Amino acid sequence: MERRFDEELRSLKERLLSMAGIAEQSVGKAVKALVDRQAEIARAVIKDDIAINRHEVEIEEACLSLLARYQPEAKDLRFIAMVFKIVNDLERVGDQAVNISERTLELLTAPLLKPLIDIPKMAALAQQMLKDALDAFVNQDAERARAVCRRDDEVDRLNDQIYQELLTYMTRDPDTITRAVDLILVGRHLERVADHATNIAEDVYYLVRGTTIKHRLAGD
Amino acid sequence: MERRFDEELRSLKERLLSMAGIAEQSVGKAVKALVDRQAEIARAVIKDDIAINRHEVEIEEACLSLLARYQPEAKDLRFIAMVFKIVNDLERVGDQAVNISERTLELLTAPLLKPLIDIPKMAALAQQMLKDALDAFVNQDAERARAVCRRDDEVDRLNDQIYQELLTYMTRDPDTITRAVDLILVGRHLERVADHATNIAEDVYYLVRGTTIKHRLAGD
Repeated sequence: MERRFDEELRSLKERLLSMAGIAEQSVGKAVKALVDRQAEIARAVIKDDIAINRHEVEIEEACLSLLARYQPEAKDLRFIAMVFKIVNDLERVGDQAVNISERTLELLTAPLLKPLIDIPKMAALAQQMLKDALDAFVNQDAERARAVCRRDDEVDRLNDQIYQELLTYMTRDPDTITRAVDLILVGRHLERVADHATNIAEDVYYLVRGTTIKHRLAGD
Repeated sequence: MERRFDEELRSLKERLLSMAGIAEQSVGKAVKALVDRQAEIARAVIKDDIAINRHEVEIEEACLSLLARYQPEAKDLRFIAMVFKIVNDLERVGDQAVNISERTLELLTAPLLKPLIDIPKMAALAQQMLKDALDAFVNQDAERARAVCRRDDEVDRLNDQIYQELLTYMTRDPDTITRAVDLILVGRHLERVADHATNIAEDVYYLVRGTTIKHRLAGD
């Protein structure tokens, strides 16, 4: 019985990692579509979101089934609850990739506003945070989780930089306004991806250490 | 034993509703601060978010404790899992209220761009959706849940309208750009509040009917 439970937990973990991989790649593809001006890729990201959402429902069901059949305690119970939370964040990462793709399809109807440098940088950072947060979860590594949270400020800084630069474009030339607003929104969506990675990392830290590092509870 | 469990479930439900009330009021206050140009209210919303986050952690812990001590099955297990998901949405509603307040504090440093009509309308709609989604949950009312999901399109339509109008302002007068972008972002944040209400309603529908009405699974 116990061996069977451990096997199912392992399989749950694998499904979560597979979902995380798809979500993280969707963000990468969404930004690639924007940078390389490839509408096909943007449309593929929007389509792929259905797969991410199916993963969410299936993993949630697997969690409930495990709880109902094995009535796990303490550590295992918290682990399953954590999976339940992480799938929620991953599903929303998928939504952000869709949002970016929708902006991209609109941006591709007009000429390129400017070469995009900070947006792919921000995307790479957010993707790496997501990977590291999942690694921290799998290895129950509190220090790695803490490091993810620290990098959130760097993403915020890049986002502010993107925002300020695009404001300058708009002020100089009103013809750039629609495109600049779309790019500002892409920046926001990437910031949200990093926020989800941070949420996951904060939860991992709490799971491992039993104490919180959430800013939002510290009141700053 | 069973009576005690039922009492604890009832208390869990009450705590969830109390958290929902705070989150919903935060959205209302955040928009009031913007419309009435009251920085004090905006700052209070940012401060209140700590209380919302504490509620989240406490309700999650209460869910885990119920699962560990009573090992509930079938319907009760799903109910608790649902509470676990809803607190997550509510916490993010609180985050949106904070985001709106941050935009407001920036907007209050400059003169009013235009009288705000659609934004309070959108806020009222999103708040009502949130209330109705929670009512649907408490009464296990699938039809009410379905009605919440339908209203999401109206919020999206209002948001597009706000966006288009602000684009016109910016194009006519570059001095309005910073304020217009801030108001566009407020629109986005309110759209997200409505999305969270829709998430909750979709989950309620699934809990009651055992079948999904999520667009995102239907692929449209």
